[in-house]
Amino acid sequence: MAAPTAQPKSEDRSNLITYSNRLKEGRALAQDVWSIYNAANLPADCINLGQGYMNFGPPEWVTEAANEALQNVTANHYSHPKGRIRLRQAIKNFYGPSFGRDLDVESEILVTSGANEGQYSVFTAFLEKGDEVIMFEPFFDQYLPSVTFNAGTPVYVPLHPQTSGDKPTSDDWKIDFDELRRAVTPKTKMLIINTPHNPVGKVYTKYELEQIAIIAEEHNIFVMADEVYDCLVFGGKEHVRFATLPGMWDRTVTVMSAGKAFAATGWRVGWLIGPASIITPTLAATTRIVFCTNSPLQEAAAAGLEQAKERGFFPKQNQEYEERRDLLVSYFDKLGMKYSLPEGSYFVLLDISTVKFPDDYPFPSSLEGRGRDFKACWFIAMEIGVSSIPVSEFYCEEHRGIGESFGRFAFCKDLDTLRQAGERLQALKKYLVL
Amino acid sequence: MAAPTAQPKSEDRSNLITYSNRLKEGRALAQDVWSIYNAANLPADCINLGQGYMNFGPPEWVTEAANEALQNVTANHYSHPKGRIRLRQAIKNFYGPSFGRDLDVESEILVTSGANEGQYSVFTAFLEKGDEVIMFEPFFDQYLPSVTFNAGTPVYVPLHPQTSGDKPTSDDWKIDFDELRRAVTPKTKMLIINTPHNPVGKVYTKYELEQIAIIAEEHNIFVMADEVYDCLVFGGKEHVRFATLPGMWDRTVTVMSAGKAFAATGWRVGWLIGPASIITPTLAATTRIVFCTNSPLQEAAAAGLEQAKERGFFPKQNQEYEERRDLLVSYFDKLGMKYSLPEGSYFVLLDISTVKFPDDYPFPSSLEGRGRDFKACWFIAMEIGVSSIPVSEFYCEEHRGIGESFGRFAFCKDLDTLRQAGERLQALKKYLVL
Repeated sequence: MAAPTAQPKSEDRSNLITYSNRLKEGRALAQDVWSIYNAANLPADCINLGQGYMNFGPPEWVTEAANEALQNVTANHYSHPKGRIRLRQAIKNFYGPSFGRDLDVESEILVTSGANEGQYSVFTAFLEKGDEVIMFEPFFDQYLPSVTFNAGTPVYVPLHPQTSGDKPTSDDWKIDFDELRRAVTPKTKMLIINTPHNPVGKVYTKYELEQIAIIAEEHNIFVMADEVYDCLVFGGKEHVRFATLPGMWDRTVTVMSAGKAFAATGWRVGWLIGPASIITPTLAATTRIVFCTNSPLQEAAAAGLEQAKERGFFPKQNQEYEERRDLLVSYFDKLGMKYSLPEGSYFVLLDISTVKFPDDYPFPSSLEGRGRDFKACWFIAMEIGVSSIPVSEFYCEEHRGIGESFGRFAFCKDLDTLRQAGERLQALKKYLVL
Repeated sequence: MAAPTAQPKSEDRSNLITYSNRLKEGRALAQDVWSIYNAANLPADCINLGQGYMNFGPPEWVTEAANEALQNVTANHYSHPKGRIRLRQAIKNFYGPSFGRDLDVESEILVTSGANEGQYSVFTAFLEKGDEVIMFEPFFDQYLPSVTFNAGTPVYVPLHPQTSGDKPTSDDWKIDFDELRRAVTPKTKMLIINTPHNPVGKVYTKYELEQIAIIAEEHNIFVMADEVYDCLVFGGKEHVRFATLPGMWDRTVTVMSAGKAFAATGWRVGWLIGPASIITPTLAATTRIVFCTNSPLQEAAAAGLEQAKERGFFPKQNQEYEERRDLLVSYFDKLGMKYSLPEGSYFVLLDISTVKFPDDYPFPSSLEGRGRDFKACWFIAMEIGVSSIPVSEFYCEEHRGIGESFGRFAFCKDLDTLRQAGERLQALKKYLVL
């Protein structure tokens, strides 16, 4: 963290301004991707398909439950650090069957201040200095600093996109299991598996997860299954919970998010499901980090889970997202551009290696030394008016070449917005070298 | 954290169950005070003056603003990690004058997921292994693990209650400045000052804060000023912001809480105010820990600060708390029991050393090895039906004798509840040895 001086001076402290950036190895002083492609830096009328939040709100009946909670005195005050009992009960009832378990609300469920804080708390509870954590690239960019802030060492294993085939899908992104085995060392403590996957949209097959499970078992690795997009799986593909594989319950913590489930990314309510041996130490960590999660929106999330089934909410929502996906990619098809059709989550990777931009285009200095995709995404945002996120950001330096061909486009937007974006994107045609 | 084995076994992981407890030096395996005096362990009709949350809700006009935010799409989605601009602007306008500064909303204000997470993020951003953090006893119990989780070492300096005088007040709790100087070492990095003080209710005088400032300046110590009770100061006493003392702005981060200000402890919205040299690294930490704070309740807190002045909200609320304080202590007076009249916050320390309980009273095993106050508070809860918190919990082992004479009673309850509690407490008379 700070320069390790026994008696720090004020000047040493100011060095800490670069603190979070220094943590990205080899990217000293670099701005993070979210700051570069922030709306404030882009044309005012740019359509934002960069960041993964919806331009629609949560369902009215869920919002209404939040409002009801606000009228209730106790729902405005501290919750138990484990989470409100109503929400833990709702989680047990809703998710228990998908885990094939009668979940214990006292020791196997933990409400957290968003999935992000849930993950962070697990790392805080379990990582020792130098413990290695394997993550598959491209990875959700918060994993990296969450691991390093807790003294862990990230180890990267890339997903490899298969280039064969005319209609690539997210399923074409494959793990090389020998490569994964070679990444395991005596210091490997954890492995993060994200399914459905951000940003690839991959929904891991049972076979793939089983191969990972074998390695986890063999080397006694503890698994974080980030399944925040578990309610968004398309084309009849099956989402397999990693924790349900034989022997995996005891070594797996599953991460979930009310924000993703109920289109409320700003509610900061998530939860962890796992064995007491993982949940109890993580409770100790989260209790110190945030003490508890906000109460009224926990009540609303509980209402959401309680009523979801009878309202047929998740299947209907899933269908809406599938329609959004299909609409957006239809415009890519029209352009003749390649992309990986996502089987889950709300992102699609577009191959932007064919977008040709002038070498002397006035790119900002923040793009210097970054992948070609940073320039392509910037060019598309400025010239076409649609923003996206360069995918090399989700790779370590060594592997960034794999990501450099792609831009991540979010389709968690209403159909009109996607239609407008798709129409704008047609102007890319003249810059394409196909 | 976990046993430092390179290749951990599942069994090692289960040891982590005692993780947070092990952090309390010398209290291995002990249950924390909140678990022991949890309502679930006490008689169902016990009046809870233990935990510091209100039995009334936030003002209706603030709740209404939360409901309005829920109707707004963007207020249901991610906020900027710095906090929503409306709230940062409201903080600037409301608090700027009390700091005598034109606060910069981009670099001097940071919204956090409760004051608790704000403090934790500061420790995450600044503490190196072995850095010492001075805290005055009795201390808010989260300070200790928040420091140790971030590899810091707590150093304790007790406030000494002066026993002279018939009508003790919180102002009788004094720092021995020579003792404070002796606690400073080359490793001292931070000092936490909590004013108004939990649990003593002390509002530090300008003179006291100036003495601390001299030491901070001399030894280049960075100060966390926990001022979450700044809106609750009684009897015309002046609350002095530590950051306003000469030279202190540059080395001080001030911690505040919407939960305390607006009777909404479950909203988990707080904020930090300080120089960019402290706020910027802390932003990097909080961005990774929680990413951002929940959006709708940030909007509500903004509305609260925007309208507070014209509604005369804080002076009125302060008067209500003063009335609550006076009502509760009137019952202590009636009993002839001694207490420290608090000049701020919503706690009062009652001298329970005169409560005599049978040696063979059936105390639970969780009280074994704890201070006499643990037994007295338990006895009062069980026999009288009013719960409180033993104050030795807020001291290190070595100094716990100072706290052992006191129980902390919270008066953030409506007048009827306090009246009922006060009447029940009269039954203590027969157990008093005055």
